[in-house]
Amino acid sequence: MKTNRSDTPFSDILALFDSFPLIDQESVEKVQARDGMLTKPPGSLGRLEEIAEWLAGWQASYPPKVDRPITVVFAGNHGVVGQGVTAYPAEVTAQMVTNFQTGGAAVNQICETFGAGLKVFELALEIPTKDITQEPAMDEESCAATIAFGMEAIADKPDLLCIGEMGIGNTTIAAAMCCGLYGGKAADWVGPGTGVDDAGLARKIEAVERAVALHKDHCKDPLELLRRLGGREIAAMVGAILAARIGNIPVLFDGYIATAAAAIIHAISPAGLDHCLAAHCSAEPAHAALLEKLDMEPLLNLRMRLGEGSGASLAIGIVQASANLHNGMATFDQAGVSDKD
Amino acid sequence: MKTNRSDTPFSDILALFDSFPLIDQESVEKVQARDGMLTKPPGSLGRLEEIAEWLAGWQASYPPKVDRPITVVFAGNHGVVGQGVTAYPAEVTAQMVTNFQTGGAAVNQICETFGAGLKVFELALEIPTKDITQEPAMDEESCAATIAFGMEAIADKPDLLCIGEMGIGNTTIAAAMCCGLYGGKAADWVGPGTGVDDAGLARKIEAVERAVALHKDHCKDPLELLRRLGGREIAAMVGAILAARIGNIPVLFDGYIATAAAAIIHAISPAGLDHCLAAHCSAEPAHAALLEKLDMEPLLNLRMRLGEGSGASLAIGIVQASANLHNGMATFDQAGVSDKD
Repeated sequence: MKTNRSDTPFSDILALFDSFPLIDQESVEKVQARDGMLTKPPGSLGRLEEIAEWLAGWQASYPPKVDRPITVVFAGNHGVVGQGVTAYPAEVTAQMVTNFQTGGAAVNQICETFGAGLKVFELALEIPTKDITQEPAMDEESCAATIAFGMEAIADKPDLLCIGEMGIGNTTIAAAMCCGLYGGKAADWVGPGTGVDDAGLARKIEAVERAVALHKDHCKDPLELLRRLGGREIAAMVGAILAARIGNIPVLFDGYIATAAAAIIHAISPAGLDHCLAAHCSAEPAHAALLEKLDMEPLLNLRMRLGEGSGASLAIGIVQASANLHNGMATFDQAGVSDKD
Repeated sequence: MKTNRSDTPFSDILALFDSFPLIDQESVEKVQARDGMLTKPPGSLGRLEEIAEWLAGWQASYPPKVDRPITVVFAGNHGVVGQGVTAYPAEVTAQMVTNFQTGGAAVNQICETFGAGLKVFELALEIPTKDITQEPAMDEESCAATIAFGMEAIADKPDLLCIGEMGIGNTTIAAAMCCGLYGGKAADWVGPGTGVDDAGLARKIEAVERAVALHKDHCKDPLELLRRLGGREIAAMVGAILAARIGNIPVLFDGYIATAAAAIIHAISPAGLDHCLAAHCSAEPAHAALLEKLDMEPLLNLRMRLGEGSGASLAIGIVQASANLHNGMATFDQAGVSDKD
């Protein structure tokens, strides 16, 4: 559902969709041609073969490579935290940003394991977005500016981009966005997040119900839904995914919140996510349903539910292996191995 | 079903089960204690937390480490290939061994991706085992000797052992073993392997039917079943798993054939596999059913069906990340992050 509007801060964002490159068929065909000569039964590397095609096709170059993977973590704060929907206090967002910067968080260790870079984008943590149960989270101008800021995720020209987030309260935000986008009961989209108790879960469901009821007449336009029910880290992830598409950079995302950002792009144009892979299915219950809406099959399912881009970063190893397999294996001819009868 | 026998070549193998160490509770408790202090919601790293416990517990030391992972590929040839059950000719086994040795195979690239060592054990490739549709694959002495040879897999003292195999014809062997161990129709346990055509698949099913019918009165004793319906690479993998248990080395295995080896140990003593994780669920259709018999949930499911220990080696990255997360993350105190309300 492409929304055509002009002379608003969102016009420039929507215009980007018209300049989206398609997958580079020439690179895909080069992958397929070499893959058929490698010393293995055809198809026997399963999704690793598909990943090599995806990588080269969206990098629009051959051979596929994972030399400069980077994870960008976007951090935001949320007015809805005032509704008592979280297990941890809001100051944890800023504390965790420091933890990312000093190397102590989970995503630091995962990135280091696979030689990936890590950057943190702090999004005005001291000014939480407005409480979505009361008013729109952001005005249109600041939402558009945050999307544009998120585009800086590709400034270092990575060849693979992982996106992640940190934001106390943002599973409530993601649930409200999903409920606004896809309908259904609030309870279907709400889960325990970082581990809220039963009373907190009830407040969380109620907050999502009230927020969606308040903004229900404005949910048809995905960017309008984003500014009303979303948050800054989510807007920034939308920008990161858009910039990566235009910059020929394949994207890995994971988690309920990053996937909610992806869902905004999908709602504008389903093909807008073709350069992305879902890296991990979260233990947050609604994430599997959301991935189904996007028709994406996650690479990993390890019952993680941490955010931070931890699942996306963990999948870097799989993508690196795919590239190395494609580029490094011998052909039947080179190895003197008899091909299939 | 522990079988007590004496004065046979298998007696020494069975005696090993009595000296199996249990998981080291002290190391597990150390992992749990530190895990609870790390800057993440409790449980939010899902299986990665369980892997850290498993690693330290079976290494019987703390902290958990993956400094010396190694993949050992066992290669064997099979008389049953004479029944026309394979897509590739038998000489491919030896050709692929050369390919492993010169670095051109899939598993080489995966091991290199994660910094793992790779060793190949060639098991008398020029003398295939006997055709299981006609007679037992091996005599007891040579089966026991091959198990003992497989124990050399831990000679380099790895801290994580991945096992894999190469052997044209060995999905037929694995299917016969499973059918002998668990009953059911041959067709339920037979799949396309490296990609046999429909006529070949029919011959494969028939070969398994005939083999199991021939040896059906000897399927109660797991080691007797192994020598009759198995193969050398499978016997050697049994030895590798046993040696790793005794040597405090956690094991990753994947694939239908390696799992059939694990099933022999499970049939003798289900707890005999507690130091092992199933790394990947193969696209070979019966593998999922076999993993269910062993009550194991694979870490990965990427539709691979190559063997070579490729799926096990791919999971090294996950296990490395688990260890690094546990060892490298900051605690709430260190990072100055507020813990849960």
